[in-house]
Amino acid sequence: MSKTIIGDALPNIPWKARPEGCTDVVWRDPENPIIGRFPFPAANSVFNSAVVPFKDGFAGVFRVDLKTRKQELHVGFSKDGINWDISEKRIEFIKTKDEIDDFSVGYDPRVTKIGDRYYVAWCNMFAVGSNTCTIGLAYTDDFENFYQLENCFLPYNRNGTMFPEKINGNFAMLSRPFNDSEPGCIFYSESPDLNFWGNHRHVMSPSTYWDWLKIGAGPTPIKTTEGWLLFYHGVQKTCSDACYSFGAVILDLEKPWIVKHHCEPYLIAPTELYEQVGDVSMVCFPCATLQDAETGRISIYYGAADTVVAMAYTQVDELIKYIKDNDMIK
Amino acid sequence: MSKTIIGDALPNIPWKARPEGCTDVVWRDPENPIIGRFPFPAANSVFNSAVVPFKDGFAGVFRVDLKTRKQELHVGFSKDGINWDISEKRIEFIKTKDEIDDFSVGYDPRVTKIGDRYYVAWCNMFAVGSNTCTIGLAYTDDFENFYQLENCFLPYNRNGTMFPEKINGNFAMLSRPFNDSEPGCIFYSESPDLNFWGNHRHVMSPSTYWDWLKIGAGPTPIKTTEGWLLFYHGVQKTCSDACYSFGAVILDLEKPWIVKHHCEPYLIAPTELYEQVGDVSMVCFPCATLQDAETGRISIYYGAADTVVAMAYTQVDELIKYIKDNDMIK
Amino acid sequence: MSKTIIGDALPNIPWKARPEGCTDVVWRDPENPIIGRFPFPAANSVFNSAVVPFKDGFAGVFRVDLKTRKQELHVGFSKDGINWDISEKRIEFIKTKDEIDDFSVGYDPRVTKIGDRYYVAWCNMFAVGSNTCTIGLAYTDDFENFYQLENCFLPYNRNGTMFPEKINGNFAMLSRPFNDSEPGCIFYSESPDLNFWGNHRHVMSPSTYWDWLKIGAGPTPIKTTEGWLLFYHGVQKTCSDACYSFGAVILDLEKPWIVKHHCEPYLIAPTELYEQVGDVSMVCFPCATLQDAETGRISIYYGAADTVVAMAYTQVDELIKYIKDNDMIK
Amino acid sequence: MSKTIIGDALPNIPWKARPEGCTDVVWRDPENPIIGRFPFPAANSVFNSAVVPFKDGFAGVFRVDLKTRKQELHVGFSKDGINWDISEKRIEFIKTKDEIDDFSVGYDPRVTKIGDRYYVAWCNMFAVGSNTCTIGLAYTDDFENFYQLENCFLPYNRNGTMFPEKINGNFAMLSRPFNDSEPGCIFYSESPDLNFWGNHRHVMSPSTYWDWLKIGAGPTPIKTTEGWLLFYHGVQKTCSDACYSFGAVILDLEKPWIVKHHCEPYLIAPTELYEQVGDVSMVCFPCATLQDAETGRISIYYGAADTVVAMAYTQVDELIKYIKDNDMIK
Amino acid sequence: MSKTIIGDALPNIPWKARPEGCTDVVWRDPENPIIGRFPFPAANSVFNSAVVPFKDGFAGVFRVDLKTRKQELHVGFSKDGINWDISEKRIEFIKTKDEIDDFSVGYDPRVTKIGDRYYVAWCNMFAVGSNTCTIGLAYTDDFENFYQLENCFLPYNRNGTMFPEKINGNFAMLSRPFNDSEPGCIFYSESPDLNFWGNHRHVMSPSTYWDWLKIGAGPTPIKTTEGWLLFYHGVQKTCSDACYSFGAVILDLEKPWIVKHHCEPYLIAPTELYEQVGDVSMVCFPCATLQDAETGRISIYYGAADTVVAMAYTQVDELIKYIKDNDMIK
Amino acid sequence: MSKTIIGDALPNIPWKARPEGCTDVVWRDPENPIIGRFPFPAANSVFNSAVVPFKDGFAGVFRVDLKTRKQELHVGFSKDGINWDISEKRIEFIKTKDEIDDFSVGYDPRVTKIGDRYYVAWCNMFAVGSNTCTIGLAYTDDFENFYQLENCFLPYNRNGTMFPEKINGNFAMLSRPFNDSEPGCIFYSESPDLNFWGNHRHVMSPSTYWDWLKIGAGPTPIKTTEGWLLFYHGVQKTCSDACYSFGAVILDLEKPWIVKHHCEPYLIAPTELYEQVGDVSMVCFPCATLQDAETGRISIYYGAADTVVAMAYTQVDELIKYIKDNDMIK
Repeated sequence: MSKTIIGDALPNIPWKARPEGCTDVVWRDPENPIIGRFPFPAANSVFNSAVVPFKDGFAGVFRVDLKTRKQELHVGFSKDGINWDISEKRIEFIKTKDEIDDFSVGYDPRVTKIGDRYYVAWCNMFAVGSNTCTIGLAYTDDFENFYQLENCFLPYNRNGTMFPEKINGNFAMLSRPFNDSEPGCIFYSESPDLNFWGNHRHVMSPSTYWDWLKIGAGPTPIKTTEGWLLFYHGVQKTCSDACYSFGAVILDLEKPWIVKHHCEPYLIAPTELYEQVGDVSMVCFPCATLQDAETGRISIYYGAADTVVAMAYTQVDELIKYIKDNDMIK
Repeated sequence: MSKTIIGDALPNIPWKARPEGCTDVVWRDPENPIIGRFPFPAANSVFNSAVVPFKDGFAGVFRVDLKTRKQELHVGFSKDGINWDISEKRIEFIKTKDEIDDFSVGYDPRVTKIGDRYYVAWCNMFAVGSNTCTIGLAYTDDFENFYQLENCFLPYNRNGTMFPEKINGNFAMLSRPFNDSEPGCIFYSESPDLNFWGNHRHVMSPSTYWDWLKIGAGPTPIKTTEGWLLFYHGVQKTCSDACYSFGAVILDLEKPWIVKHHCEPYLIAPTELYEQVGDVSMVCFPCATLQDAETGRISIYYGAADTVVAMAYTQVDELIKYIKDNDMIK
Repeated sequence: MSKTIIGDALPNIPWKARPEGCTDVVWRDPENPIIGRFPFPAANSVFNSAVVPFKDGFAGVFRVDLKTRKQELHVGFSKDGINWDISEKRIEFIKTKDEIDDFSVGYDPRVTKIGDRYYVAWCNMFAVGSNTCTIGLAYTDDFENFYQLENCFLPYNRNGTMFPEKINGNFAMLSRPFNDSEPGCIFYSESPDLNFWGNHRHVMSPSTYWDWLKIGAGPTPIKTTEGWLLFYHGVQKTCSDACYSFGAVILDLEKPWIVKHHCEPYLIAPTELYEQVGDVSMVCFPCATLQDAETGRISIYYGAADTVVAMAYTQVDELIKYIKDNDMIK
Repeated sequence: MSKTIIGDALPNIPWKARPEGCTDVVWRDPENPIIGRFPFPAANSVFNSAVVPFKDGFAGVFRVDLKTRKQELHVGFSKDGINWDISEKRIEFIKTKDEIDDFSVGYDPRVTKIGDRYYVAWCNMFAVGSNTCTIGLAYTDDFENFYQLENCFLPYNRNGTMFPEKINGNFAMLSRPFNDSEPGCIFYSESPDLNFWGNHRHVMSPSTYWDWLKIGAGPTPIKTTEGWLLFYHGVQKTCSDACYSFGAVILDLEKPWIVKHHCEPYLIAPTELYEQVGDVSMVCFPCATLQDAETGRISIYYGAADTVVAMAYTQVDELIKYIKDNDMIK
Repeated sequence: MSKTIIGDALPNIPWKARPEGCTDVVWRDPENPIIGRFPFPAANSVFNSAVVPFKDGFAGVFRVDLKTRKQELHVGFSKDGINWDISEKRIEFIKTKDEIDDFSVGYDPRVTKIGDRYYVAWCNMFAVGSNTCTIGLAYTDDFENFYQLENCFLPYNRNGTMFPEKINGNFAMLSRPFNDSEPGCIFYSESPDLNFWGNHRHVMSPSTYWDWLKIGAGPTPIKTTEGWLLFYHGVQKTCSDACYSFGAVILDLEKPWIVKHHCEPYLIAPTELYEQVGDVSMVCFPCATLQDAETGRISIYYGAADTVVAMAYTQVDELIKYIKDNDMIK
Repeated sequence: MSKTIIGDALPNIPWKARPEGCTDVVWRDPENPIIGRFPFPAANSVFNSAVVPFKDGFAGVFRVDLKTRKQELHVGFSKDGINWDISEKRIEFIKTKDEIDDFSVGYDPRVTKIGDRYYVAWCNMFAVGSNTCTIGLAYTDDFENFYQLENCFLPYNRNGTMFPEKINGNFAMLSRPFNDSEPGCIFYSESPDLNFWGNHRHVMSPSTYWDWLKIGAGPTPIKTTEGWLLFYHGVQKTCSDACYSFGAVILDLEKPWIVKHHCEPYLIAPTELYEQVGDVSMVCFPCATLQDAETGRISIYYGAADTVVAMAYTQVDELIKYIKDNDMIK
């Protein structure tokens, strides 16, 4: 029995065994996509979304693009993690300070449980500027009322992902500040109070062939005996397009800005039609995992082609072995 | 006698009266540039630099580009604010924490006195990435030992300028986060301890013809009875080049992210040969002022053509009247 | 019985009822694409084409790209509007003046009946320059002889669509002048004689998420009791590609440069494989409609993926209600 | 005595003889620039402007950029064509139709006398869009009241220049439609009534080394026994910048879209400091000429470095000989 | 019996007859792709590869992209030319000189038999620079040991293809030097010794609609009584992507830099899903042919969508007739 | 007496002593520019030119841009190396093979004496393509007849500079292949016969602040006891423009692709008005030196602002000491 994952058992984790003949360390759900593109009539697509265990089932915050192509966040609930009931109404955040800008457009949420509270981080568009965004942050205790905090950083930033516990006494977040004319790197930041942030550290830059354009942290890091297991997406620019795949690294438990192991090959790249064709072609973009500390099973939710939600599965010990066998760090 | 400036008298302020026939509200020193391009043999240029009253004269932190074209910060001292003795050795910062990156390349310093301590903010290049920079911060009590603090923000950021006193109980800074494919705007941030920063507010975006590409805060804001007087540079892209001019706004004293008055015309644009021709053509870039609360005199130090240091002068009451007469805010 | 459409009955309009379970206001023909990519051996594709009722059936002008990828216009005839007989020979225009340039390359035709005559407008490439084009114009009475008039405008222009009757005593046309570095907008112009054009008016700019890059008028506007019903395509740029969808507005009957109602969501976006994959991925591009004033039925011909011809259907009263329910104009 | 120019004598034409030792066919005024950059305190610069004989002296429409860098048109008067009195107030156009957009921003005027009336054509910015412009047109009889007509063309267009008499019974204009991703060419258009325009003809494309990026018609064409003498600017892109020079062609008198002679070398390129350095470096941009049919003298007004007004001189017979000696058309 | 191809009989050539109803001169294998994307677990894709007759079957050099997306060359063998056994180990080249850089990354191989020796030419990435490549060259006698020679040319070059015999006493190669800001053209070069290269000649530039962005030689030219039959790929840039098709030309036998016949339409363009969708959408890229001089049969191996290997077939006499019937050269 | 330079004495070398107060290791001629921009009436400029000792004085090949801005090569002669007589007729090359393209446009010549023969290498534009160039090569014995050889390389290449003697038994050349989207590097190549070239080696990439965009070899390398002394230009991109400076390296005598010493600071950067302002601003571009082995004096000819010819001077031992004192190679 694996005890590599440091955390709770999750006996009801959605799960499919590795298909026969498959030798990959991470494998897809054969019934992908698990959530189709039209969750309700006004919606154009649902993808890049985050789920957590909640009560006797699961809750989630979903990126829904409307048929206006406006990007919103919607709540959803599920008994089994596969079949989801997604609200037709977007989340209306309750501001914790007057000076916080009203939510306008937001996308690519991550949800992290710290203590008994759920934190949602997302890419938050400013009212000023046409493409000015940074990391928005809110919390909820019940997935009904969401309380919006100050933005974590100055623009321009995307892909904010919180750690599930305090590091060195502070809240901690990975994010990907960006400048369209530079490769995008992952940084680490800390906050004593979720209002002021600092102790910024560079974590990793694009470093291999499938991720050379930019990278971004994916789901909440998973605490293991080997370090923080982080899935991240990487973008390769081809003769024709950008291609979003995802891979994994293991970060130091106490100084999570130090990469201990870095898996050279990707884990999942767009090779299935629902990943290759859609509103944005060639995208596999993970935003959440579920994991069962008892069995070491990990279920990965990822957006496919910016259109639908798909799932993949792995087992933590096999995965960590694979990462070490293919380690870029000597 | 003017009492518009809230601050100290500075009887030894460097000063030239407005030339006869000149009708401009800000005028140049006829002996510009006051510091030529080769302050010492290994130097290529000196510009975009910051000065403050110090002891019975003045001290400053100067941007010096070497003949390798590497960008460094050097200390200088002056009796009269015009004739400067600039050190041939760059500032070697003493790190206040091990995790802070060693200083590598930095430029465009601002110096702000808060209480009895001098704070230097500059554009600090990261060791990783070819053009990854953010706001570096250090303090000194004597212009001999400089103690480097954590970087204030994540990249990508330039033009960090501190307020000379706490706002709402926090240190406060203006900065210009940037993304090369978007117009650059000025934001406001606060910190309780100069380690963690938050309460980020949008202050102003490019809004007229001479500044439409990007803007950035210039010298430390000057406290006046009308609000914070802020000189800022704006960049216009012409058929041929970028053109850096500077103008002024008045910010609310208590909520400095609110622009109360916004002068529509520029104050100084590159019209003299030493501003038009040099390592970067068409640049007037202010980084520091001196002011005398007794007379309302303001002396502005600005970099010209990224090559030399020039000076301009104005009187606070005349300037505020001009700003209000040409106000873009109704 | 609907009398919303001001025009003729068209009992033989091609028509498919809304599929069961479908809640969309515009729905696709389940047998799409109705015209496949190889209408004859030398052809590479057929799409973005225009049809009108003609005699006891229908006639059309089709964009055919040859296997040289050269773009031509070809005549076609059909009894039922679905099964088309497309000529292997391109249209050879008869010039009405010597000074008119010989037709070289042209594409994206619209056909409009005004009185008893049929007018063809298309994107007409100049012999000079590599991508210099404007709106070409010709008329025919019989779909055998086509008489080419002067180009309507100076370059650079695309997507010229005539109104089916004179406005304020003049012929009227919508078009989309373009500059590759600016968003593309729809303008309105008038002509007393189809030789000289003026009274140019701005009609609409890109204004929402699915059309922010550029827009262009689609089929001949449909006269209704509510105003001119105009389908238009809009282009969104994603992380990977351009995506062409289409929506609808209602223009003022007498001053058609005034938008009375503007539907915020798109009506049809590329979500079917034949729209997503082809010579140009992610394209739904309407160039013609047929409508029956008796029933209010509207059949929309649109090019899919710059490769094939597809059809969609709607009913005018339902559509106008939908437009008003989702109106961007308050 | 030359009778090459078909037109009026102008005995008071401003004139300087060719400097000794100079072998150039066009030569500069040694007192250039004749109008400096600050015609009045609110002005930043004056350049690219148009003058005509008026009463016993001269009148002109001047491009003035304010210190806000907003571009306006101002009237000026002069006794000698060299010393100008330029109004501090911009021209307020009287609209001849309600639907015409209010003048917002405009620049690079040309003035053409046809019969007894003066027509002003300029680059007219639309209120919509950030850089959407076309040719604005107005007339005046007295240089006091200016009556604005409909815009001549759809966007995107610059450098509209009228012919001084009707061609084939129509008003005629040269203009330069543009698309930032294509070389800019000169086209010819006609109008029976200055409201509707058509008969568009391609005149010339960039064709040599100094003009390969784009070209645009300059002053009103001069009628000569050899054809229409047209000065035009051409733009060359170097390793560093755009460079605006000007040259000359001779157009067919009756079919002015036919170039009869095309001078291969430039006539004036930026080689003087006031042409090389200014708000836009490396610009010589002619917008007007004066000519004396008696002597064949031609005085050329050109903007220098987008900052000041300069003058050059030539003699028509010498110039035409030079054009023929260096003819690109065989 | 055809004797158009000058060369050996190849009775075991892989072959499928033209499908019924198909009128194309080149037709696809209905079982395409013949090699799927995962030849072994560490591989991401296999495509753009070269095969030759070898012993009683066939050998080949394959482009394999690993799951790191690193590009490598692997050997493969086949009895029938359709079913391939591809080595999981990349080719380790034996350097013939110390100064030759170690093989790092390489792709798009061509294999040419000259005399009894097999030469492999490929796009060879330099260790310095991020995208610096030129033509690498090696030989083998047994497809086990490969001996690497000096690079043929300076960077930047791709698509090197050798002629199967000496021309004018020298080895001869086609290649495509490139500069990303210019159209890519095919050049011809000669070498007396495969060490030093010269006599560079321009062969052809992009010249029609389907190849206007860039072109590159494909498989080893086939010697025929009419000249060298060369398949080449051409790239068209659409509103969305690059599209790689292939066509054919016939080169002069003795001066192969002279194009005798140039087929205007493409032969194969991406119209099947496996060509349209994959790691790089819209790619048909031929690198090898087999041909049987007895029957005139030609089998073409081409990479599809930078993901898999596909095959097409033609007959030489039919093809040459088609080329001449559609000749761009008069 | 210096014997550091391995070569001939040149007692009549043009020479100016270092100005008083100057501490730079390379200093300018105070009478710069030594050749003004109009060497004859049809010329626009003269710069980036090459000179050698010839008979009892000096001969040179000059880049002359005509007033058409076409780039040509012209011969010049001088008694003192300062005052030059430049031919108004361009060099008409005599082709040594029919297949060599006729000279059309060429620039930036270098001249190297090897044995008793003078070799001219230049940037040679192809007749096909708009910006396709490579290294052209010719020889002369008398500066009257120039015999054109095959181009040395495939495009795209510039800045070819020959070594003054054979290396390892072959002729040797430095050049700078280029791709506009990559940094430009210097490579080394060899030829046994000046017809075929190979043994290509990477020499150096941009590596410091003043040269990070691209670099190119300048004058013929000077043989010294320490290695080949090579002046090279480097290009820095600033906020506004490209800036061309020059520096120096010392290459290994026997393996000249190995850089032994690399001077970190530039030697001459554009700081004088004639270097900062001209047809291309901010350019110092050396193409030739003269040197006197007796005294170690070196005279450097460099183009300034792509407009005029300037000179600088240094002494070999001082320069080598400076290079070593500022060596980037440890």
